[in-house]
Amino acid sequence: MALHEIQTPALIIDLDAMERNLDRMRQAAEPKGVRLRAHAKTHKSADIARLQMERGGACGICCQKVSEAEAMVRAGITDILVANEVRQPAKLARLAKLAERARILVCVDDPAAVGDLSAAAVAAGTTLEVLVEIDCGAGRCGIAPGEAARDLALAIDAAAGLRFSGIQAYHGRAQHLATESERRNAIAHAEALTKETVTLIAASGLECDIVGGAGTGTYPFEAASGVWNELQCGSYVFMDADYRRALGETANDGFEHALFVLTSVMSVSSGRAVADAGLKALAVDSGLPTVHGIDGVTCTGLSDEHVQFADPAGRLRINEQVRLVPGHCDPTCNLYDWYVGMRGDRVETLWPVTARGKLY
Amino acid sequence: MALHEIQTPALIIDLDAMERNLDRMRQAAEPKGVRLRAHAKTHKSADIARLQMERGGACGICCQKVSEAEAMVRAGITDILVANEVRQPAKLARLAKLAERARILVCVDDPAAVGDLSAAAVAAGTTLEVLVEIDCGAGRCGIAPGEAARDLALAIDAAAGLRFSGIQAYHGRAQHLATESERRNAIAHAEALTKETVTLIAASGLECDIVGGAGTGTYPFEAASGVWNELQCGSYVFMDADYRRALGETANDGFEHALFVLTSVMSVSSGRAVADAGLKALAVDSGLPTVHGIDGVTCTGLSDEHVQFADPAGRLRINEQVRLVPGHCDPTCNLYDWYVGMRGDRVETLWPVTARGKLY
Repeated sequence: MALHEIQTPALIIDLDAMERNLDRMRQAAEPKGVRLRAHAKTHKSADIARLQMERGGACGICCQKVSEAEAMVRAGITDILVANEVRQPAKLARLAKLAERARILVCVDDPAAVGDLSAAAVAAGTTLEVLVEIDCGAGRCGIAPGEAARDLALAIDAAAGLRFSGIQAYHGRAQHLATESERRNAIAHAEALTKETVTLIAASGLECDIVGGAGTGTYPFEAASGVWNELQCGSYVFMDADYRRALGETANDGFEHALFVLTSVMSVSSGRAVADAGLKALAVDSGLPTVHGIDGVTCTGLSDEHVQFADPAGRLRINEQVRLVPGHCDPTCNLYDWYVGMRGDRVETLWPVTARGKLY
Repeated sequence: MALHEIQTPALIIDLDAMERNLDRMRQAAEPKGVRLRAHAKTHKSADIARLQMERGGACGICCQKVSEAEAMVRAGITDILVANEVRQPAKLARLAKLAERARILVCVDDPAAVGDLSAAAVAAGTTLEVLVEIDCGAGRCGIAPGEAARDLALAIDAAAGLRFSGIQAYHGRAQHLATESERRNAIAHAEALTKETVTLIAASGLECDIVGGAGTGTYPFEAASGVWNELQCGSYVFMDADYRRALGETANDGFEHALFVLTSVMSVSSGRAVADAGLKALAVDSGLPTVHGIDGVTCTGLSDEHVQFADPAGRLRINEQVRLVPGHCDPTCNLYDWYVGMRGDRVETLWPVTARGKLY
């Protein structure tokens, strides 16, 4: 099937560009001696997760929700960190049961959570590996670094059904800072807090097998630090418009746009055009999409079912297809049931969005 | 099942509030002698569409995409206006085939579209009813009102397989204007253009069986105009935070919030809390959600998988459930596979989001 036969809107992958992105990240991580645990919340696809592990050198994946991890285990992925807190008792029971079929790691940021997590693992007869999540600057989840984190590690180590495996130190807010020096400073601050915590934990006789964190915006700093040993980058595989705005064309190994929403023009009038991808086809939380490969045409807004373009030179024609680079990949991918994998202008594969809608 | 047993995030309906909203809209439309053709793009649910017709008095529904209409026909709805242009040939073939099983109406805004639409209907051996969409102020799709629209009506009337059924005159931008006088002025302008077009078409010997338009923000004006005879309101059934900001508590029949995203607190710290509904659980294109029923707690931001609250009084506890009113219903509903229908604090029903992800 050719590109022009695709009914739109559709979520398409430039497979060549995606494969080059996989190679770039592997070449960035391996020489530094750090593992990659690719974040699957970006794409929610078991097929892409497998490529990240096989071609991209990842040791496993991250998920963000129990249901996301369940979908990935069902599709054959067997080494998963739920890089998040899980607190509802019914979810803890599901998580513990999942450890029958895969290596499951999860984060904890509260001493009060240890008992419930332990009870769930004991009830399921499984072992859950646990990372202590510290707040290293993002101000979202995470226990205070230092002694509070050390005490939490000791509590986990003492709990039945749990194995203390290390530290989760992810600085979410730092990823999209607009300049390299801001990102560098944020991670330098996180590095000091993380190192202090790892050292305290070591002094108490526990080992941090994993010190995890980093995203597409900051991983060069974490990889070079000697403190982190697992990178949790996700967006690098697709590279969205918001990361392009923050990183420019060449920073952080120059990842290419590999994901597009394909849309078709449905109405034209003087100087403007309307196409068939709206707010249900593109997430706009991180800004409007950018138009790929058509000079002089810009996206001016989205409504529920339409995207509007300024087209002063009158380039766009009815049924012309336009590639849009999403402002933010993760919530955009979650809107679709299928990826259409393109090799040039030919459809090579369809991949399900394995964990689409798995939020719970 | 009780509310507290629901695993979150979940999309819940207050069925009592929704039923009162259905009654309010029926009572607003019937005395004016205008039909309601409820817009199903808001909820994408065949169950709710049926309630809008049976309890709410709607004559049929609107959809926005062919695949949405296909899903609704499959679920037994048999009178559907695709209130939008359809231009891709493969979609036209699907639309024409759908008319084997239901009354199907569609919009056209371009003389060049008539031939393709006619050919599709002839090939399928069906009849498509067609509305001429005019641009009555929104500046999106729509042909110019007046003679251009009249000529398009005549071309449709002359085309095999097509039946000219009237005018689509929807002013999308007017719906969310912040004051009643702005909304009134916008619709007064649209009314003049629509009336002029209907009169011209009548003078050419054609009847406009349908003059459709209006949304939750402006329908009192269209209903009172004597020009429109079908209202296409959708959001009234749920009432989102953005419409509340525009309309206040009492304007336009005082619809109640009937749709909520239920989220559970997963991390608390001094003055703030984090819960488990992020950008994949709530659309933020029209602003942040509002917190329902907990004084002093406000939503301060969303990231991919988390919602953050300011909670200066420390009210929120781990695993406490919070009801969020979405900023914008339509793209939020499209994120979920199921509605959880609540009667008070008990689950009464589960309804599939019939046309979830049907964008094409």
